[in-house]
Amino acid sequence: MSNNIDMQRFSRSKLEDFMKRCFVATELPEKDAETVARFMAVSDIMGKDSHGIFRLPGYIQRLINGGINKTPNIKVLKNRTATALVDGDNGMGHLVVNFCAKLAIKKAKKSGVSWVGVNHSNHAGAAGAYALLPLEEDMIGIYVAVGSANHLPPWGGVEPLLSTNPIAVAVPGMHEEPILLDMATTVSSYGKIKVHAQRNIPMPEGWMVDKNGEPMTDAKQADLGFLLPIGGPKGYGLALIFGILAGTLNGAAFGRDVIDMNADRSSVSNTGQFILALDISAFMDKNDFKQEIDKVIQTMRNSKTLNGVEGVRLPGDGSHAAMKDRNENGIPLPKPLIESLAKVANTLNVTPLK
Amino acid sequence: MSNNIDMQRFSRSKLEDFMKRCFVATELPEKDAETVARFMAVSDIMGKDSHGIFRLPGYIQRLINGGINKTPNIKVLKNRTATALVDGDNGMGHLVVNFCAKLAIKKAKKSGVSWVGVNHSNHAGAAGAYALLPLEEDMIGIYVAVGSANHLPPWGGVEPLLSTNPIAVAVPGMHEEPILLDMATTVSSYGKIKVHAQRNIPMPEGWMVDKNGEPMTDAKQADLGFLLPIGGPKGYGLALIFGILAGTLNGAAFGRDVIDMNADRSSVSNTGQFILALDISAFMDKNDFKQEIDKVIQTMRNSKTLNGVEGVRLPGDGSHAAMKDRNENGIPLPKPLIESLAKVANTLNVTPLK
Repeated sequence: MSNNIDMQRFSRSKLEDFMKRCFVATELPEKDAETVARFMAVSDIMGKDSHGIFRLPGYIQRLINGGINKTPNIKVLKNRTATALVDGDNGMGHLVVNFCAKLAIKKAKKSGVSWVGVNHSNHAGAAGAYALLPLEEDMIGIYVAVGSANHLPPWGGVEPLLSTNPIAVAVPGMHEEPILLDMATTVSSYGKIKVHAQRNIPMPEGWMVDKNGEPMTDAKQADLGFLLPIGGPKGYGLALIFGILAGTLNGAAFGRDVIDMNADRSSVSNTGQFILALDISAFMDKNDFKQEIDKVIQTMRNSKTLNGVEGVRLPGDGSHAAMKDRNENGIPLPKPLIESLAKVANTLNVTPLK
Repeated sequence: MSNNIDMQRFSRSKLEDFMKRCFVATELPEKDAETVARFMAVSDIMGKDSHGIFRLPGYIQRLINGGINKTPNIKVLKNRTATALVDGDNGMGHLVVNFCAKLAIKKAKKSGVSWVGVNHSNHAGAAGAYALLPLEEDMIGIYVAVGSANHLPPWGGVEPLLSTNPIAVAVPGMHEEPILLDMATTVSSYGKIKVHAQRNIPMPEGWMVDKNGEPMTDAKQADLGFLLPIGGPKGYGLALIFGILAGTLNGAAFGRDVIDMNADRSSVSNTGQFILALDISAFMDKNDFKQEIDKVIQTMRNSKTLNGVEGVRLPGDGSHAAMKDRNENGIPLPKPLIESLAKVANTLNVTPLK
């Protein structure tokens, strides 16, 4: 998408610093501002354009309107050996999920696996950023979230009762980059469609349908249509189950209770997520496992392709390529986004991104 | 599918008794024969026609050829508070996974969540049967298996390095039947295609492609084609991750090491599976949760439908309807299957199904 529109590149540190200053200006404590800015920049560096700095104006508006708690008391409500239920106290999602991930890693070290669920969290950016955290301790990470707006009806229905409810799973290799699956249960994420709308690019058929079930390609009309689940009833089933596990089970919003984060900038979202950490050494030697994963990656990558297909890819290849490019050459931002960031800077009276 | 072919119905107890007698005749211990027959009948009663008695001739052949260990020593190889790695000792998959599920439930009672992986297991029938087991103790069940034959290439590839690697998730309601998602990561399971081939019914487009990526509809030619993953690269990603979690992590077969259970009746399959049990009470009062699930079910079911769609269904609706019908009226078996079961009975010198 980067080629269709005027882009300007900024270093990761510039982006992070700008975002941090914006958050501090809304009175987020400096350390928290830093953490949020870091996770947002991870989204951008991984090429998840719809989940990083693109979200800054929305977050800032929520912080200003009181839709997000600037000084949350994130705490454990229920505690078992390998599980916890966390109250995010309506803090920034990045802070809340980071808290949960750290707790999950600590628990999995003791018990082999852990599952930490949370309520009263908020949108936390790219799911992959959190699934990757357990890898630092030689664990596998799984993260699931209730999406922040309902655009998916149950299969055969026309009421958008479900969100894209994404899952991310990260598995470490030895010399190879981690396998990083980070996917919506819909054919396209809604964030990707928002980027298409902002950049004025039509959607391919199969991403959305209108109220009569007919294909829709104008991303600017997205509010009038519905997302399509992967594999029809199967994707609906996954979205439903993920919503129950990340939402209902945690006492977080699900179904009609989900607030559209983009339309409503002040109501408490009560977003639900969960993170699972699985200690590799509970099953096999961690180095043996990582070497096996390298073999799996190479087997897939070196396998024969269909005519015309350049090569088999692994989940996460796109992110690893984006990281390489963007760490070297900076993160490309489109003009309309730069303009909207300049407006934010102006409102907050902070030095704009340059 | 039941309407297209001559069917004869048999009571569940007759099926179970017949299967048990066949297994005992191959020298499976009586108690084990009973357990396997029970789980197979559960597949049939739930309408999973390709995973119950349909598999009997194949299992019997493997037992006779020494491809399955009749008297396995199923044991825990690695043990942590909330995890275990189990050695199935090449026993019947139904016995092995039942062992794992019981262990997972016991562990989750203590620690809130548990994850039990297994190697040297075998094909275990319908995934849903095992995901349902934790519900008896007010838990949520998740079960994932490496499929027993590779028919799925990585996305863009033409080498069948992956299986349908199914997932099943069961969530209890209060008055409503459980939500039971039981799905392959491919558009169709291979078992369903085998049933189409046996019944001589063409496949719909979108289930399989040939080596050039062209649609394939003749189920009898299935060996020459490839399954398609749900959501293209997303379904490939899920199949890959599930294969790693249920296979590689457990030291079980994955990728090129997977034995085609239908083509090879004697080699040890080293099948991998895992089961996760999640104790509802670690997150909220179990009755409150079940009531919430009833509400979720009713919200989905009572939502508006697309023109021409009769009603929104929940994952598992088909199984619950089949259970009701088949418990009352018996399990319908097609003539070709009855004939093949008669041959098995003859070989084993047991009284045929009547």
